[in-house]
Amino acid sequence: MRLATIRTATGTAAVRVDEDGAVELGAADLGEFLARPDWKATAAAVGGARHTLAGLDYAPVVPRPEKIVCVGLNYRTHILEMGRELPEHPALFAKFARALVGAHDPVELPVGSEQVDWEAELGVVVGAEVRCADPEEAAAAIAGYTVVNDVTARDFQYRSVQWLQGKTFERSTPVGPWLVTDARPGEISCEVDGDVVQKADTGDLVFAPADLVSYISQIITLVPGDIIATGTPGGVGHARKPPRYLAEGSELVTRVEGVGELRNTMTRGR
Amino acid sequence: MRLATIRTATGTAAVRVDEDGAVELGAADLGEFLARPDWKATAAAVGGARHTLAGLDYAPVVPRPEKIVCVGLNYRTHILEMGRELPEHPALFAKFARALVGAHDPVELPVGSEQVDWEAELGVVVGAEVRCADPEEAAAAIAGYTVVNDVTARDFQYRSVQWLQGKTFERSTPVGPWLVTDARPGEISCEVDGDVVQKADTGDLVFAPADLVSYISQIITLVPGDIIATGTPGGVGHARKPPRYLAEGSELVTRVEGVGELRNTMTRGR
Repeated sequence: MRLATIRTATGTAAVRVDEDGAVELGAADLGEFLARPDWKATAAAVGGARHTLAGLDYAPVVPRPEKIVCVGLNYRTHILEMGRELPEHPALFAKFARALVGAHDPVELPVGSEQVDWEAELGVVVGAEVRCADPEEAAAAIAGYTVVNDVTARDFQYRSVQWLQGKTFERSTPVGPWLVTDARPGEISCEVDGDVVQKADTGDLVFAPADLVSYISQIITLVPGDIIATGTPGGVGHARKPPRYLAEGSELVTRVEGVGELRNTMTRGR
Repeated sequence: MRLATIRTATGTAAVRVDEDGAVELGAADLGEFLARPDWKATAAAVGGARHTLAGLDYAPVVPRPEKIVCVGLNYRTHILEMGRELPEHPALFAKFARALVGAHDPVELPVGSEQVDWEAELGVVVGAEVRCADPEEAAAAIAGYTVVNDVTARDFQYRSVQWLQGKTFERSTPVGPWLVTDARPGEISCEVDGDVVQKADTGDLVFAPADLVSYISQIITLVPGDIIATGTPGGVGHARKPPRYLAEGSELVTRVEGVGELRNTMTRGR
């Protein structure tokens, strides 16, 4: 089952995206919808206003999550090929909700940055409140998977030892188009102007989605709509020789097999 | 003028705290109240339900800010005494709203941490929406000042290169008791069980409040109720020889002259 938040003439709406159209779920967005304890049964059964697929305007899958938690280095192969040891604990940082844009929205190039880079990631959307969850409870609290590109201004990321300022520029992080409740995420890839720049297997994560939910829930309560960006594999532009960055007009395609695809064009931010 | 969020029998309420009592402002909390364009004039003029000072139960000054932005090393004297150079840009990281507690609430010791430390900080509360603000616009967008203790689990902070997980434990960060709209913040200090462990002048900040609002607003829109924790001076427990940490029952007093005081007791978290 695929669930999304779309923009309509009267505001946003949570929808179920079927093969032949999208059906409204009676909530303003997926964050509000996932807060209902019976969201999964409701989503499967409901039959509200319909929209044709061709005209769908995707908002960020959850437009205003309470929390966005991002993970640093998390692909085993990439860590080992860089000569590093596998980490004992995940590296976690945050992103603010205003950084999010929809699956086909323009992505704004941060003004003042000359080093805007891609980071294709598997996204996890939380579907139940959990605190101090064991891995089984954590797995049950995952609503589904989505696609994220943690677009990063490298020069701002490395202005200090903390990455936040390179990671949370307004309207810089596409997420969507939907969450898939029954996905088996496969290959993750990123294309820039038609060149495949990242390709990996989401099964190669050091800290898998349920591990991350469990770990983070030891620190703070996770709630429906929270998003976890699980980290990016090798192939980012900053590590290339010479480095390669995104520019105005660059076409960014981010794909997770079994989940979905983002298609975004880079535009000049303010 | 001092503005706060208090807990009442019927939920939280934004109040003005006068010498002889607190007056309700007609909003559920200060975040909601500060979102009104005319909040300052309203706060000065309003005369709603009254509460005696003695019985006030302070919630976090803004219970659910959209953003909490924290600053790393920011006291000039402390940076220089450590033999470091003054930074060109602030080190920024985030904290989630569920980490906040009120001025007299218990502060929860993170389970699994053996190194819980204090960080007295001057807090800034944003009172207007700003984006790409110059320093003058930034100064005008500050609603007022408050007191924060950025209580930190050092062992979790240093589990990875990103500090978030040591900084955002549930119910670990006291903030309040109020914001002062016309404060001239003076000396900042922290006491643990009656020992003065930190003492500095808030005028010694490398990046002053308006600088921080301006800087952050280049990255993302700041909105009413957002909180900026401006960094802590020298004297943290982790840097002592031997190190000193907070324990169950520790009494933590955090004070900013001209602003206010937090008094919190450390309790065992879950």
